[in-house]
Amino acid sequence: MNQTLSQERILHLKQDYERGFIRHCGFKAGRVDHGRFGAFVDLKDHHRQQDGFVHAGVMATMADHTAGYAAFTVVDSSFQILSIEFKINFLKPAFGKGLECRSTVIREGRKVIVAESEVYDLREENRVMTAKAMVTLMAVPGESLV
Amino acid sequence: MNQTLSQERILHLKQDYERGFIRHCGFKAGRVDHGRFGAFVDLKDHHRQQDGFVHAGVMATMADHTAGYAAFTVVDSSFQILSIEFKINFLKPAFGKGLECRSTVIREGRKVIVAESEVYDLREENRVMTAKAMVTLMAVPGESLV
Amino acid sequence: MNQTLSQERILHLKQDYERGFIRHCGFKAGRVDHGRFGAFVDLKDHHRQQDGFVHAGVMATMADHTAGYAAFTVVDSSFQILSIEFKINFLKPAFGKGLECRSTVIREGRKVIVAESEVYDLREENRVMTAKAMVTLMAVPGESLV
Amino acid sequence: MNQTLSQERILHLKQDYERGFIRHCGFKAGRVDHGRFGAFVDLKDHHRQQDGFVHAGVMATMADHTAGYAAFTVVDSSFQILSIEFKINFLKPAFGKGLECRSTVIREGRKVIVAESEVYDLREENRVMTAKAMVTLMAVPGESLV
Repeated sequence: MNQTLSQERILHLKQDYERGFIRHCGFKAGRVDHGRFGAFVDLKDHHRQQDGFVHAGVMATMADHTAGYAAFTVVDSSFQILSIEFKINFLKPAFGKGLECRSTVIREGRKVIVAESEVYDLREENRVMTAKAMVTLMAVPGESLV
Repeated sequence: MNQTLSQERILHLKQDYERGFIRHCGFKAGRVDHGRFGAFVDLKDHHRQQDGFVHAGVMATMADHTAGYAAFTVVDSSFQILSIEFKINFLKPAFGKGLECRSTVIREGRKVIVAESEVYDLREENRVMTAKAMVTLMAVPGESLV
Repeated sequence: MNQTLSQERILHLKQDYERGFIRHCGFKAGRVDHGRFGAFVDLKDHHRQQDGFVHAGVMATMADHTAGYAAFTVVDSSFQILSIEFKINFLKPAFGKGLECRSTVIREGRKVIVAESEVYDLREENRVMTAKAMVTLMAVPGESLV
Repeated sequence: MNQTLSQERILHLKQDYERGFIRHCGFKAGRVDHGRFGAFVDLKDHHRQQDGFVHAGVMATMADHTAGYAAFTVVDSSFQILSIEFKINFLKPAFGKGLECRSTVIREGRKVIVAESEVYDLREENRVMTAKAMVTLMAVPGESLV
């Protein structure tokens, strides 16, 4: 596992982060280091439920996807990352103007990688942890994806 | 807990299901019974990742939201349902033309409700379980939501 | 993956099931089929908490271990099975004279196997599902265990 | 929620920790603070599997039980604590001479409490995190336990 990420690799991962369903959700990549990946989103009405709170699915998607990219930072660029499973606890309702997610690898295995994601609600006056997830991922050689 | 749902209650829950982030995701309510809720989605490019597979966040959002509405079928209409936490395993990649979700309540508590959600990938020739979730929910009187 | 288990393999798995910490807990192997493993325990005072209910750890240990042996039934005898992670929901308190566990493989992967375990409380008059778990396991060639 | 624990309360919780199945497992209470509970165990042959590694059930039981007592430190002494569910990831095999568990409350709700447990393998030369769990608990008034 490489301990230093090239600027090229970081740029690639940040661009790769923001595609498909994640673009539809409006999530943006943030700071990237070995074993760590950050992300954020400006919250719009379409992220909320009818009661105004952010939908659990928004937080779960962010926690899962960002954990996957934290895992990408600890494997060679020839590997793909798959989510095997995750668990998320919703700690506080989120109703602020944005969300921030910070994912950290806690097990750097050759095949099985485990990462934690903390999701924060960015409110007017403060920043509150709204959800926490533990995500199990698998590194697979690029060609054996299916 | 009432064992029969009125047509009015079923209609209300089906309409209520399809709002906010869930409308943004294009999910539609399906069949509703006591302790059971179904849903489906026609898959578009914005549900996928760059590799063409459906994003784990789409399945997780569907599993969580549909479990919540299965929980609504076992409580009085004055109650709100909150997701406390959920866990989801991704069993097979999804790449079909649609997803179907079936959620079933397995613990009908007064406060704590547990439901399972099975997500199926609707492929040309068959229908494959792509993810399974176990969701813990809480029933709270409507006025004490926050 | 073989679809029929030899009597020799079944006998081996049943004997192998009841060792170490599992012997200390008094669990016994039950019925075995391809993808399925059963187990039971006669409940003693040392399985309980001070309030008389069976300890969550007893049910969790049974759910995890039995899922592992369900996984053994779908791999070649040269493979070892490791628990990667599990999640368990406690549905009802257990206070009966015994517990029964039934584990079923729901994903038969070459490397990653997923099984569910249902734990039942055997009461005087009936049999109640007291806990349900979803367990992620990995099959590894015997020599590469560590 | 009280922020300071009396010496009497700490002593009571430490004694209460070591009963029933937990005594059978040989776990001992360690350091106690508001929102935190520690525990340890000297590992014996009966904690292990046939391959010499500590059984996942030992770590899961310790993670669950210690999280429960961390929850006891944030509620009034008239409340009981129940495990609703937990999830545990096994990060490294444990084969040392002892285990240590540290549980920390990450959500101090009036009813729903969430705690994390980290389990460490105490090896000859170092100390390695072997498992991590996220536990959802419920505080219930003593008399309404069932």
